[in-house]
Amino acid sequence: MDTTLRFDILPQDTPAHDALRQTLQARIDGKTKPLGALGRLEDLALQLGLIQGRPDPVARQARVIVCAGDHGIAHEGVSAYPQEVTWQMVMNFLAGGAAVNVLARSVGMEVQVVDAGVAHDFGRIAGLVHAKVAPGTANSAVQPAMTAAQCDAALARGRALAHQAAEAGCQVLALGEMGIANTSAASLLLHKLAGVPLEVATGRGTGVDDAGLARKRAVLTRAAARTGTLGAFDALCEYGGLEIAMMAGAMLGAAERRLLVLVDGFIASSALLAAYRLAPAVRDYAVFAHQSAEAGHAALLQALQARPLLALDLRLGEGTGAVLAWPLVQAAAAFLDGMASFAAAGVSGQSA
Amino acid sequence: MDTTLRFDILPQDTPAHDALRQTLQARIDGKTKPLGALGRLEDLALQLGLIQGRPDPVARQARVIVCAGDHGIAHEGVSAYPQEVTWQMVMNFLAGGAAVNVLARSVGMEVQVVDAGVAHDFGRIAGLVHAKVAPGTANSAVQPAMTAAQCDAALARGRALAHQAAEAGCQVLALGEMGIANTSAASLLLHKLAGVPLEVATGRGTGVDDAGLARKRAVLTRAAARTGTLGAFDALCEYGGLEIAMMAGAMLGAAERRLLVLVDGFIASSALLAAYRLAPAVRDYAVFAHQSAEAGHAALLQALQARPLLALDLRLGEGTGAVLAWPLVQAAAAFLDGMASFAAAGVSGQSA
Repeated sequence: MDTTLRFDILPQDTPAHDALRQTLQARIDGKTKPLGALGRLEDLALQLGLIQGRPDPVARQARVIVCAGDHGIAHEGVSAYPQEVTWQMVMNFLAGGAAVNVLARSVGMEVQVVDAGVAHDFGRIAGLVHAKVAPGTANSAVQPAMTAAQCDAALARGRALAHQAAEAGCQVLALGEMGIANTSAASLLLHKLAGVPLEVATGRGTGVDDAGLARKRAVLTRAAARTGTLGAFDALCEYGGLEIAMMAGAMLGAAERRLLVLVDGFIASSALLAAYRLAPAVRDYAVFAHQSAEAGHAALLQALQARPLLALDLRLGEGTGAVLAWPLVQAAAAFLDGMASFAAAGVSGQSA
Repeated sequence: MDTTLRFDILPQDTPAHDALRQTLQARIDGKTKPLGALGRLEDLALQLGLIQGRPDPVARQARVIVCAGDHGIAHEGVSAYPQEVTWQMVMNFLAGGAAVNVLARSVGMEVQVVDAGVAHDFGRIAGLVHAKVAPGTANSAVQPAMTAAQCDAALARGRALAHQAAEAGCQVLALGEMGIANTSAASLLLHKLAGVPLEVATGRGTGVDDAGLARKRAVLTRAAARTGTLGAFDALCEYGGLEIAMMAGAMLGAAERRLLVLVDGFIASSALLAAYRLAPAVRDYAVFAHQSAEAGHAALLQALQARPLLALDLRLGEGTGAVLAWPLVQAAAAFLDGMASFAAAGVSGQSA
């Protein structure tokens, strides 16, 4: 099967992009600093310019969308926390007291909280984006997590949210998540889509102990054995989460609107992996914000040939790592815009 | 010889600090996140609290002091740039067009530009802190870089600048530098103070080619052979820079006033190494902002048992890396202040 959606993402290997790349590189190299001395900020500035298709890209406004969803596989005892924590944390997000809220305020980012598929009735509570596809997935240890129609709906709603962010003036979109047991879904996606062995792909999530980790691995092994090789859409249906599919849709939708996508940790990277397999052009719009302390993330980043910006041993999700990378994106745009050139500043260049 | 100055830095191994450490750790662990899930932000919050001596530390205002100085050893041809670039870059700093200006604006930090010892007459130019000890150091390949009186003056003026920053309301002080050939000074300090072989301690600086690197190594080998084992103050006198000594004094002065010190890259770390050998208590006030791409920095960090926050392949100096770490310090203070506790948010804790 495949998704019924078609994502229209501008590829970045066109002649126009090649010309722009040269223009951007010349601008970067003309700044008053030794060649390459701003390291990865220079790469970021170049990428931002290519994404926006202009030599003077801007990074003024950014949003983090936190997608929440529940997982049937939680009933197999794969998490250190009970499932009700998903909706309780949604309430915490809405009250502004969770890590992502506080960090987003600290760096000047908007937060949007989305019910992608929480197993809880929030009623008409204010502040929440009601995009619930289903009250949680089915238990992927014994059956597909979602139907094709549900997966399509999650992708489509994610895409629409990204388009709204673009229309609201954002140049950058970060994706975060909340969902008890969603490291299990991410590990299964990594295993199925990149062939990473489950013992490598599976970690402690929010903190299961040794016995819990052994149980989690046994459950995931059972779940993985249900199916053979899978394409991206089928893998999402079989093992994904509604919040993961919605993040994948949002990443693809952001790339359609030429936004830079800040990818958070293990779960968000699994969404990007699925999105990448659905539409490879999305990869050029992604910036990997941080290296998570979750075991499988290194393998996931390797599968995507990604080198994250930050390594702060975070393992929280919610988009916290992505949020912390926003000042770096702003700094990249700022140096490209505001730094003097050697000529303008009257500074002597490097000796021949 | 030793400096005539006495630095009065509160050590952090007192019983009061132990009690505060427990209070801070309990606050951190009570936040709505799995234990330890904010990784190094948690370490930062703890350190900030211990530095300020309070369970609710603040990180509202920060300054970067950019110390500029020239180096007699530049005449040996150890740099890819001519010496006049030092004063030209000071003019660039004053005009607001250098990388540190732009990045500091981007993250909301004040910049203070200091003439610690530039070989140029700036007249009474506005905006510059006139703290010139001498118009550059002597050539340390053939004689001591500075006299004991000059080194003392540089340390004392640095200390005074840090005290002024504290009085202006800063909780955080970053140190940056500009000085053609100052990677040579830093390499010699690393070699003399930590016993790191010169072939490890010496890198390409702003970008010398292979022949330039060979020449630089030969010059530094000759310089190092002039002296035997040295204490911190003597090493600063023999091989340091006026801007390096001033940064060391500022780091010590910041610690005296219980400011957190953001240490930039290779040169700033060499200043911290010297400061640490003068007054070991300063180490607990230091946060290493980034891993520089300059060759010797890894060894320097190892000598200080330091693990930097960022690894962005920067090799520019000016304080650019330190400036980029300021949002992380703010984020650390923000989560400690603003995040809800499990109890307050009504979120279930981890399963036993």
